[in-house]
Amino acid sequence: LDTKELAARLAKGDRRAVAKAITLVENDGAGAAGLLKAIGPGLGNAFVLGVTGPPGTGKSSLVDRLTESYRKRGLKVGIVAIDPTSPLTGGALLGDRIRMVDHTLDQGVFIRSMASRGWAGGLSGAVADVIQLLDAARMDVIMVETVGIGQADTDVVRVAHAVMVVLMPGLGDDVQASKAGLMEIGDVYVVNKADLPGADDTVVDLLAMARDFKGRDPSVLKVSAAKKEGVEVLVGVLERIRAKFLASDQGRGREIRLRSIKGMITETARRRVLVDLEGRTDSKVEALAEEVMKRRLTVDEAADTLLEGKERRRGTRRRAR
Amino acid sequence: LDTKELAARLAKGDRRAVAKAITLVENDGAGAAGLLKAIGPGLGNAFVLGVTGPPGTGKSSLVDRLTESYRKRGLKVGIVAIDPTSPLTGGALLGDRIRMVDHTLDQGVFIRSMASRGWAGGLSGAVADVIQLLDAARMDVIMVETVGIGQADTDVVRVAHAVMVVLMPGLGDDVQASKAGLMEIGDVYVVNKADLPGADDTVVDLLAMARDFKGRDPSVLKVSAAKKEGVEVLVGVLERIRAKFLASDQGRGREIRLRSIKGMITETARRRVLVDLEGRTDSKVEALAEEVMKRRLTVDEAADTLLEGKERRRGTRRRAR
Repeated sequence: LDTKELAARLAKGDRRAVAKAITLVENDGAGAAGLLKAIGPGLGNAFVLGVTGPPGTGKSSLVDRLTESYRKRGLKVGIVAIDPTSPLTGGALLGDRIRMVDHTLDQGVFIRSMASRGWAGGLSGAVADVIQLLDAARMDVIMVETVGIGQADTDVVRVAHAVMVVLMPGLGDDVQASKAGLMEIGDVYVVNKADLPGADDTVVDLLAMARDFKGRDPSVLKVSAAKKEGVEVLVGVLERIRAKFLASDQGRGREIRLRSIKGMITETARRRVLVDLEGRTDSKVEALAEEVMKRRLTVDEAADTLLEGKERRRGTRRRAR
Repeated sequence: LDTKELAARLAKGDRRAVAKAITLVENDGAGAAGLLKAIGPGLGNAFVLGVTGPPGTGKSSLVDRLTESYRKRGLKVGIVAIDPTSPLTGGALLGDRIRMVDHTLDQGVFIRSMASRGWAGGLSGAVADVIQLLDAARMDVIMVETVGIGQADTDVVRVAHAVMVVLMPGLGDDVQASKAGLMEIGDVYVVNKADLPGADDTVVDLLAMARDFKGRDPSVLKVSAAKKEGVEVLVGVLERIRAKFLASDQGRGREIRLRSIKGMITETARRRVLVDLEGRTDSKVEALAEEVMKRRLTVDEAADTLLEGKERRRGTRRRAR
C-alpha cells in the first residue's frame, strides 16, 4: 500500500479512496499512521458540525435535508453516523437505519456509519481519524450525527466546530432533564417537526433555558424536515457560523479549531488506552476474578494487577508502521 | 483514620460509617485501598440488582416500591442512583430528583446518588467500590439504578447479579431500537404504568422479542408503581432469583458471582486509566494541540505523546496507602 498515493487520491476527493482510507484507520492497519501524516498539509478546510438530540426527533431526516441544501450550494458533504453497539454482540444496532434520501450516487457526498463503543457508548474511537480523512478529501461540511442516547452526544461536542441540537415539540419530563445538559452544548437549536402542536412552547422554553446559560446565545429555529420547511433558514444560520470559522485563524475561530484538535487528541488517546485495556481483559480478568472470589485479592488489587504489564502491551500499532 | 475500626462499624451496618466510607473511596483518599481490603472477608451476601430502561418509565418510583416491600420482609436495602453529569460543570444534573418515599429515617435503607462520568456517561468509576461497601454493611439487596440514557445502562449489566429493565406502554419507534439492546441485558422485564393503554401490547411485544434471543427466558411483568399494583408479584420473582444466587456457589450461581466480580475489576481498572489520562490532559493537550495546529504533529502523534510518561504518573493512589 502506497500511503502517498492514497493521500493524493484522497485530496482529489476520490470516494473509493476515502472508503479504503477509513477502513485502514478503523482497523489500525499498517500505514494508518503514515496516511494520517501524509494528509496533514491538506487539513483545516472542513467545518465539523455535531448533530445530536434525543431519539425520535428526526435527526437523520434533517441531516438529509441539510445535505440536499448544501449540495445545491455546491458544497461537498461528509456524514458520519455514530450508531450504538449491542453490548453482547458488539454489532451496530441501527446499522440499517434508513436514510430518507439516497445520496449514494452523488460524488459530492460521503456517508459512513460507525459503531460506538458499547451500547449507547461514546464516539467510535476512530472518529477523529475519519474526520481528518474527510477533511483531506475536501469535504466542506462534515456532519457527525449521534443517536442521542449516550456518551457520544457529549463526546461529539469535543471534536465538532459547532453543535446543532435537534429537539421536537412535546418531549417529556425526563428529556427535560437531559435538555439541561443539551443546553450547555448547542450552538444552534432546532425544533424539528414544528408542524406538531406545542412547537412554539418548545421554542419559548428553549429561549428561557438559554437565558440561564450566560455567555451562550444560541439560535433557536423551527423546522419541519418532513415538510421541508425552515431548512433554508437553518442552512443560512449554519453557513454564517461556517463563514466565521473559515475567515478566522485568530480569536474565536482559532479557539474553535484548537478546541476541536484537543478533542481529537484526547479521543484518540482514550481509544488507544481502552483498546489496550480490553485487549488484555478476557483471560487475565477471568483468572483475577477467581482470585477475588477466593478472597486472595480485593477487586481494587485485581484492577491494579490488570493494569500492570500495560507498558509491554502498548504500542502494537506503533510497531506496525 | 483507622480503617479496621471503620470496617468494623460498617459490618454493624452503621449508616454514618457507610457514608464516611463511600466518601473515602470516591475521593480515593488515603486508606481507601486498606478499607476495601479490610472488608474483604465480609463480602458476598448482597444481591446486586441493576435497574435500567428508557427515561420516563418510572424507575425511581418502582425502586421505592420495591424498597418498601423488601423492608416489610425484613431485608436491608442499598440504593445507588447513577445520575448523568453535566459535560461542562461536571455536576450531577438529576442530583435533586425527588424520591416518592422518604426512607431517610429508616436505618435499614441506604441511598446514595453518584454522578456518572460525563453527561449520559458510564457508571461512576467508584460504583464497584460502593457496592462492596454496601455489601460489607450487610445490605441484602443493592439496587443500582441508572437513568437509561447512556453508557451506564450497559455498564450496570457488568457489575449486577441480575438486571431489571423497566419499560412502559406506548414507547416510540426510537426506543424500539434501544429495546433491541435492552432485550439482551434483562433478566426481568417490567411494564410499568400498566394502567395506561397498550400495556398488553407491550407485554406481547416483549415476549416476541424475547423469543428472538435464545438462551434467555426473561420474566415479563405488568406493574403500576403509582397504584402499587403488581409490586408483590415482582418482588416474588426477584426473591426467587436472589434465593438461587444465595443458595449456590456452584454452577449458575457461581457464574453470576464471577461475572459480577469481573465487571467490578474491569470497571475499576477502566476508571483508574481514564482518571489518570484526564489528570494529565489539561496543560499537555493544550500544548500538543498548538503543535497540531502548526502542522508539526499529527493528531495521531499527539495522542501518542500524550500517552508517553503514563508510567511515571500512574500509581498515585497506590503510594497513598
